[in-house]
Amino acid sequence: MTTGSIAEVLQKAKRARAAAARLALMSRAQKDHVLSSMADALEAQADVILAANAGDVETAKQRQMSSAPIDRLLLNTERISEMADGLRSVARLADPVGEVITGWRLPNGLEIAKVRVPFGVVGIIYESRPNVTVDAAGLCVKSGNAVILRGGSDAIQSNLALVNVLSQAGTLAGLPEGAIEIIETTDREAAGQLMRLNEYVDVLIPRGGGGLIRRVKEESSVPVIETGEGNCHVYVDAAADLDWAEEIVVNAKCQRPGVCNAAETLLVHEDIAADFLPRVGRRLTDAGVELRACERAIKHLSDSKPASDEDWETEFLALIMAVKVVANVDEAIEHINRYGTKHSESIITADLVSARRFTQAVDAAVVYVNASTRFTDGGQFGMGAEIGISTQKLHARGPMALSELTSYKYVVMGDGQVRT
Amino acid sequence: MTTGSIAEVLQKAKRARAAAARLALMSRAQKDHVLSSMADALEAQADVILAANAGDVETAKQRQMSSAPIDRLLLNTERISEMADGLRSVARLADPVGEVITGWRLPNGLEIAKVRVPFGVVGIIYESRPNVTVDAAGLCVKSGNAVILRGGSDAIQSNLALVNVLSQAGTLAGLPEGAIEIIETTDREAAGQLMRLNEYVDVLIPRGGGGLIRRVKEESSVPVIETGEGNCHVYVDAAADLDWAEEIVVNAKCQRPGVCNAAETLLVHEDIAADFLPRVGRRLTDAGVELRACERAIKHLSDSKPASDEDWETEFLALIMAVKVVANVDEAIEHINRYGTKHSESIITADLVSARRFTQAVDAAVVYVNASTRFTDGGQFGMGAEIGISTQKLHARGPMALSELTSYKYVVMGDGQVRT
Repeated sequence: MTTGSIAEVLQKAKRARAAAARLALMSRAQKDHVLSSMADALEAQADVILAANAGDVETAKQRQMSSAPIDRLLLNTERISEMADGLRSVARLADPVGEVITGWRLPNGLEIAKVRVPFGVVGIIYESRPNVTVDAAGLCVKSGNAVILRGGSDAIQSNLALVNVLSQAGTLAGLPEGAIEIIETTDREAAGQLMRLNEYVDVLIPRGGGGLIRRVKEESSVPVIETGEGNCHVYVDAAADLDWAEEIVVNAKCQRPGVCNAAETLLVHEDIAADFLPRVGRRLTDAGVELRACERAIKHLSDSKPASDEDWETEFLALIMAVKVVANVDEAIEHINRYGTKHSESIITADLVSARRFTQAVDAAVVYVNASTRFTDGGQFGMGAEIGISTQKLHARGPMALSELTSYKYVVMGDGQVRT
Repeated sequence: MTTGSIAEVLQKAKRARAAAARLALMSRAQKDHVLSSMADALEAQADVILAANAGDVETAKQRQMSSAPIDRLLLNTERISEMADGLRSVARLADPVGEVITGWRLPNGLEIAKVRVPFGVVGIIYESRPNVTVDAAGLCVKSGNAVILRGGSDAIQSNLALVNVLSQAGTLAGLPEGAIEIIETTDREAAGQLMRLNEYVDVLIPRGGGGLIRRVKEESSVPVIETGEGNCHVYVDAAADLDWAEEIVVNAKCQRPGVCNAAETLLVHEDIAADFLPRVGRRLTDAGVELRACERAIKHLSDSKPASDEDWETEFLALIMAVKVVANVDEAIEHINRYGTKHSESIITADLVSARRFTQAVDAAVVYVNASTRFTDGGQFGMGAEIGISTQKLHARGPMALSELTSYKYVVMGDGQVRT
């Protein structure tokens, strides 16, 4: 590790810690004013941001990056306006801080209130999308948290320009200095350093591919919220409405195949396999989906190839779907609990007993009955923006919005009580 | 690492995982029956447990362990009855599993319920108190979690005997096999293995001294809830009722000095230092407390010695108290946020502005106004038993009782909804 990157990360973490103490006490009106000032500044200084972004895109082309990641990296005035509007939407959301979650009075007269408070300092380790920079900064400001951003090297010029604009505008509008920090050193060691700063960082949220998430989980001594991996299933029960089932399977697989809440495996009850598989198979094949089927399913699918064991555990993130015939809801549950990533799972059925069994026994953040897995999303759930989808069970599960970026404290009022 | 210990930990974790799936679906009546059967078995088989415990005590004496830890290790029929009664109390507590925490309907008709569910598998790494074995097993059964216990070598014979009794009685009463597992290998490697089993263990809770907690935090890739360290303060404000202040300071320091919610440092507003310090000093000295005072405080304390910088950051866990005079509530807050461990902090004041400032700005799990820090305890809070006091901000803060041993899932009911 270079001395430079140690010094940088530590210095920024200390600044963030100091800012967090002040940010925690800001009122909603003050925070909303900061957010709208940041939004205006993004639009007013779009040229500076676009110039920096052009540098990143140029570097990416020199490195012969393919077109899809370059598209994710690319900013234009429309995308900058979308980011600014995102900040304005966050300003309109309720302030989670200060909510009295519950409270009670003890026999000795002590009054206990459980009050929502910010975490303090949130670290975000992410890859190449510059919009994460703005989303994360906005959600952290609103939830009263200082944020330390550590983005990938591909977007570093864009990220630095964005943070520069956001923090200048924020500071002018009353945001404590240090509330939005970005690590300039994009080497592996700088991220590693951030993962060990328990004294300064309260929680780390990795956003990106499986490799990144695994590394943070393995290396971090700072508490981590695991996000993202979604090997999701749709199970079509014997008692399913097959019209609903068809639309839901197609939607869950095809509406946006590259995201974590898209379905990867279709499980079909043996009693309806002969009816349902040919029709859903046709729809999926027409939509360009490659089908990889078990021995029993393959007979009912005109255009498919045999599934390998590995297919059951793969998050394809592409127009590929594994298909398996199961004997009953219990076999479906067993398959899901074995291969799933505890993200989003759906049963299609009109049978109440199957529905109850599935929702109770499937271990996932979101369990659907007669709906597409694609709804697992903070916006769709009506929570406003989200920072990610948690697939762990500690702290938050499923969509993480503003409330999920907070902790709580107990405030206990007394009149001289002592313990006897 | 020996092949034996790898194999043992992995095998037990797999059994616990399988048990968790069944335990999660058990009704309250079933779980309460298991708990009361376990309680009865502890008392009925006290002789077996006491014989095993005598072995541990004998070994401890051969190793020349001092009397305080031997006393913590020692069981007798009365202590076994207390453990049994603990299980019966847990049976009387409400079942956290299945609680609908909140729910709402979306514009598209989807109905979302946020339902409390067990974590799954909880790992407990602890030191030499055999009562932790029984407490943890009881709380985990009631909250629907399988538990993997990894206690210290000093109590291993007692722990094995206890788990043997508990799991035999539990299984006869309907508990799935594998729901209460204990790691027999007490070497460092067995604990290390447990900390990497993300596939099988949902959360790890270390219980014990600072060294143990730091090791688990550093090494574990399984999510950890940090518990225990408490460098707690009492701040006596200028506007304090000095009678209340005196009783609270003495209670917070002396009522049970060896526990995490005991106070370690007294902060006193300069305006009342000359009045308050001599009287509280006398009380503390009479109670056998050694006072370590700042330059300003020492003048008002007849029996004290100068505090070193290290004293401000030390959890004495003994009849020692650091004393400092501060200029105002803000200096008190700054001192606490700098040296505290985010556990329990108290202000004694009749001034509303100071009280609000202190409760808002002090970053701790529990912030008191006019009460002793000693109340930070699941039993005192009216939560029933507790598995520990969390000093981190992720997931749970302060006393961790049954609800804090759970996660949640979203259950979403639809009528064929797809995302557009």
